[in-house]
Amino acid sequence: MPKALIFDVFGTVVDWRGSITREVRAIAECKRVHLNAGKFANEWRSGYQPAMDRVRKGDLPWLNLDALHRLILDELTKKYHLHQLSEDEIDRLNRAWHRLKPWPDSVRGLKIIKKNYTISPLSNGNFSLLNNMAKHSDLPWDCIISAELFGHYKPDPETYLGAAKLLDLNPDQVMLCAAHKDDLLAAQACGLKTAFIKRPREFPPSMKIDLSTDTRFDYNADSIIDLGNQLNVD
Amino acid sequence: MPKALIFDVFGTVVDWRGSITREVRAIAECKRVHLNAGKFANEWRSGYQPAMDRVRKGDLPWLNLDALHRLILDELTKKYHLHQLSEDEIDRLNRAWHRLKPWPDSVRGLKIIKKNYTISPLSNGNFSLLNNMAKHSDLPWDCIISAELFGHYKPDPETYLGAAKLLDLNPDQVMLCAAHKDDLLAAQACGLKTAFIKRPREFPPSMKIDLSTDTRFDYNADSIIDLGNQLNVD
Repeated sequence: MPKALIFDVFGTVVDWRGSITREVRAIAECKRVHLNAGKFANEWRSGYQPAMDRVRKGDLPWLNLDALHRLILDELTKKYHLHQLSEDEIDRLNRAWHRLKPWPDSVRGLKIIKKNYTISPLSNGNFSLLNNMAKHSDLPWDCIISAELFGHYKPDPETYLGAAKLLDLNPDQVMLCAAHKDDLLAAQACGLKTAFIKRPREFPPSMKIDLSTDTRFDYNADSIIDLGNQLNVD
Repeated sequence: MPKALIFDVFGTVVDWRGSITREVRAIAECKRVHLNAGKFANEWRSGYQPAMDRVRKGDLPWLNLDALHRLILDELTKKYHLHQLSEDEIDRLNRAWHRLKPWPDSVRGLKIIKKNYTISPLSNGNFSLLNNMAKHSDLPWDCIISAELFGHYKPDPETYLGAAKLLDLNPDQVMLCAAHKDDLLAAQACGLKTAFIKRPREFPPSMKIDLSTDTRFDYNADSIIDLGNQLNVD
C-alpha cells in the first residue's frame, strides 16, 4: 500500500476548461469584445506543452507556469483582439489559473483520503499558484509539491522521484493519481504506484480521449471519492 | 500587513525539550539504562548548531536535519551507554523529532491565523520531518517550506528570501514568527516582517533566555493565539 498520494491538478482535481472559459468570457463581455471563450481556453491550454518544450530545448530559460501562461496569453490577446486590457487586468486574467474550480467530488474525496494518507499535488503549476488555488478552493493538501521545486516539468523523472525523495519514501510507497495516462505511465516507469481518475468532461466532447479502464494501473476510479472508497476497502 | 506568516517550529510551535525528554526516558527505562533524559535532550539539541556549522564550512556535505540529528545521536548513545539499541530502535528514536508535541496554544492559534493568511513552517527541519509532524499533531499548515528546499539552513538569507520567492510575495509581505531573536533579526535584515513569540519553557529554568518585549519587532506575543488576536484587531 502507498503511504502518500500525489495528484495531478489541472484536469484531475480542478476543471480548468470551465473555469478559464468563464473568466475569459467575463472579461471579453466587460470589454465588449466578441470571442469564443471556450476556444480561447482550449488554445491557452494547448499552448502549454509547446511552451514547456521550448524551455526543455533551451530556447527559453527555466520559467514557472505563471510565466509560461503569460507568454501564451500575450499571443492570444493579440489573436483575439482583446487589446484594451491594462497590465493589472492581464495579470489578473493570467492568475485565473490560481482560481480554478475543483470537480464536485474533489474536496470531499481528498478529505476522505487525507485521513489515512499524506496528500499533495504534484503539478507543473508553480508553488504559489498551487498554494493560492488551495486557499481559494479549500483543497486540504498536507503539503505542496510543485515541479518548480525540481526545475523540471512533468513528465520528467526528476519530478516523480523528487517528490518521493522529499517525502522520504521509496517510489513504490507513493502513488500518482491523474486523469492522463501519459503522466501515469511516466510515474510508473519511475517505480511509483498509479491511479487513473476518469474525467470525461476535461476536454470538449469533440475531442476523443482514452477513458478506458486500464489494467496497467493499480487503481481505476470514476472520481476521487471513488478512489477513497476503493483504498479504504482494500 | 503581511499576506503570509511563516513559523519557526522547534521551540516556537512545538516543545522539543519535553517531547524528546519523554522519548529518551522511555527507551532508557525499557533498556534499564540510568541516565538524565533532560540532559540528553538538551545535549542533542545543542549539538545541532555545531553540526550545521560543519556543513557550512564544508567539513560535511549538505545533510538534512534527520541526518544531522543522527550524527549527534550516535555520539550521545555512546556517551550515555545506551548501547543495546537495534538499528530500527535508533532510527525510531531519531524520528522522535517528527513527533514533537505542539505547545497548548499552537494548533488553535494557527487555525485562527489560517483564516486570513497563508501559514507555513520555515524550519531547518527537513520536508518529511515537518510533514510527518503536521500529520502527527494536526498542525494545519497550508504548505511546507523547509530549509532543505534551498540547500541552506536558517539564518542564511537564502531561506527567508527563498520562502518569499516560492510564495511569489515581496519580503515585506511575509512575516517570520519565532521564539528566537537571532532568527527574527536575520529575517528582518532580509526585509521580512517579524513577530516574537515568547516561549519561557523552551529551555530549562537554569538557562537565562531574553524574553523581553522588543520594539524592533512588528509584534510581540505571549502565544500564537495572542498573535492571532493582535492580527485580527489591527
